[in-house]
Amino acid sequence: MSGAAKTVSRSEASASQEAVLLVALKCFVEQGFHGTSMRDIAGAAGTSIAAIYYHFPSKAALLRAIMTRVTEDLLAELQQAKANVKKGDAAALLAALVRAYVRFHTERREEAFVGNSELRSLEADDLAHVIALRDKVSGNFNDAIAAGLKQGSFSCAHPREAGLAVMTMCTAVASWYRPGGPATPEQIAERYAALALSMLGAK
Amino acid sequence: MSGAAKTVSRSEASASQEAVLLVALKCFVEQGFHGTSMRDIAGAAGTSIAAIYYHFPSKAALLRAIMTRVTEDLLAELQQAKANVKKGDAAALLAALVRAYVRFHTERREEAFVGNSELRSLEADDLAHVIALRDKVSGNFNDAIAAGLKQGSFSCAHPREAGLAVMTMCTAVASWYRPGGPATPEQIAERYAALALSMLGAK
Repeated sequence: MSGAAKTVSRSEASASQEAVLLVALKCFVEQGFHGTSMRDIAGAAGTSIAAIYYHFPSKAALLRAIMTRVTEDLLAELQQAKANVKKGDAAALLAALVRAYVRFHTERREEAFVGNSELRSLEADDLAHVIALRDKVSGNFNDAIAAGLKQGSFSCAHPREAGLAVMTMCTAVASWYRPGGPATPEQIAERYAALALSMLGAK
Repeated sequence: MSGAAKTVSRSEASASQEAVLLVALKCFVEQGFHGTSMRDIAGAAGTSIAAIYYHFPSKAALLRAIMTRVTEDLLAELQQAKANVKKGDAAALLAALVRAYVRFHTERREEAFVGNSELRSLEADDLAHVIALRDKVSGNFNDAIAAGLKQGSFSCAHPREAGLAVMTMCTAVASWYRPGGPATPEQIAERYAALALSMLGAK
């Protein structure tokens, strides 16, 4: 049984497990994975170390659960966005993916931060699992770009770099977006979709 | 005297100080700031804790030096790039800024990682100093975009988001670039400059 396979899924998780995950996320955001002990997590949760270990066998299991879930949730959002787009319209598809990705990153900022800063801290099989999920995320963007180029609705000499640029500019929204800032998540999502289409030379 | 003012500048630093900074950087990249002790740094440097404290009064001083220097070096690169562009050509200016910024981020990947993951760990006055330096970096991009819009050489309804998108997609090059990958730093810099101009609707 791989490490990744042991991850507690959302439907199986108890309220106490959810609470522990939330506290662990806060600790990782503030002090990093290596700077956080199971004792810190128990302290922040107002419970015993034994109670934490009852729910999660290790600190690594907490990180695995946080990173797997956020990436699975992102993939589900992208699938949902795709499902609402008219088949064969690559520009509409890319715009929908960008909007969903941006909105997600305004909502899940702490998990995005840990997702980017603590890849180093995942155990080998967990890392492979998270990377495989991320490859599916990238695949959505790269497929939309390739389809747009094939249709002639995009014009871009460097689709590989364009795909990386679009995804990373959208991921980074998590690092600068603050609720109550000059634009709402919806506005940012809309503007980023327009910027991505412009970058791809959309007709 | 502010914390930032105490940072050891490059010209004042001794070879031993440089060596300590390099080791501290590696430790922060691997384990995070909070997960690294002065003992870890001494161990990795093959020296005593006292020797580390001789050069740097605290772990915070090491982080301050790493983050201040990398941002000052980036600013210097951008100034250099600007100096080589014909006055009044906003598109050439933006392209030059993007190229310099991308090349820098293929070279200084570890410092970029720490720069993004450990802002949380800077002491208040050091954070203010680093943010002020970063505002100068952003100012270069935002000024180039504003100039291009004023000249009519760019066409973009959302210059604030475009500035954020350009800078963050370029910063992220540090996270995915690997030496020996399919494109050289020069090629990536050139392609990113073209993507940025396209995003801004450059004529």
